[in-house]
Amino acid sequence: MQQAIDLAHKGIVSGAGGPFGALVVREGRVIATGSNRVTSSNDPTAHAEVVAIRAACAVLGHFQLQGCDLYTTCEPCPMCLGAIYWARPDRVFYACTRHDAAQAGFDDQFIYDEINIKLSVRRIPFIPQMRPEALYLFDTWRNKTDKTPY
Amino acid sequence: MQQAIDLAHKGIVSGAGGPFGALVVREGRVIATGSNRVTSSNDPTAHAEVVAIRAACAVLGHFQLQGCDLYTTCEPCPMCLGAIYWARPDRVFYACTRHDAAQAGFDDQFIYDEINIKLSVRRIPFIPQMRPEALYLFDTWRNKTDKTPY
Repeated sequence: MQQAIDLAHKGIVSGAGGPFGALVVREGRVIATGSNRVTSSNDPTAHAEVVAIRAACAVLGHFQLQGCDLYTTCEPCPMCLGAIYWARPDRVFYACTRHDAAQAGFDDQFIYDEINIKLSVRRIPFIPQMRPEALYLFDTWRNKTDKTPY
Repeated sequence: MQQAIDLAHKGIVSGAGGPFGALVVREGRVIATGSNRVTSSNDPTAHAEVVAIRAACAVLGHFQLQGCDLYTTCEPCPMCLGAIYWARPDRVFYACTRHDAAQAGFDDQFIYDEINIKLSVRRIPFIPQMRPEALYLFDTWRNKTDKTPY
């Protein structure tokens, strides 16, 4: 965790992005690291956890992190939490909490709140369109015999 | 939306990944597209929406999508929902629902459920560690005078 903290600190000082660091460990060895670089890379998804997960998957040549642990300097936001569940590491170690982050101006709680309300009343409007025309995509997927499930 | 549906279909047929497509529109023009490529790029975060958002931000040279609309063939999973809130497009148009996706084997609901339970009882263990040592990161961030907020 100290390495993740040091990464976060370097990221702030260098101007890479926000005060967050993360890394992925496998069999006692750090296989990938990340720090927030949203503003420096013009990528709103470049949170430390996402950067570290993508890098670890690139190293392993696989889209799953079974057998790995993720260390992050802060409790993940909903986006990173989703990324973690799709990547499926064994465990997540975190240092600061979402409340610590909120006090520093990172309002993950707003997103947590929006997730739990109806799509029709969300702050960003979610508008249904052309469901009947799109449903065949799932049939195509179901019927595909050579697919890679994930 | 028809373009997003066509992208999703191409993605299935070509073996890029799951049955999902997305695109970003600004001033009536498609500025970026994406289809799921989790399995082909070994990137668990490469959902259609994330791919399209990252591509749109790269085009605009900014980490925000104000003034843009996102079209996606399916209601976003929690990861993509988080990415959308960080990118802040004006509106999201979606075709299929999370229930349609679940019937095709994409269990976003599991992640929605996990988000709302205590960290200590989640299926992936979330373990607190070294909060006192990490808290200074937020002070460093607060005191940084030349930072780019996001």
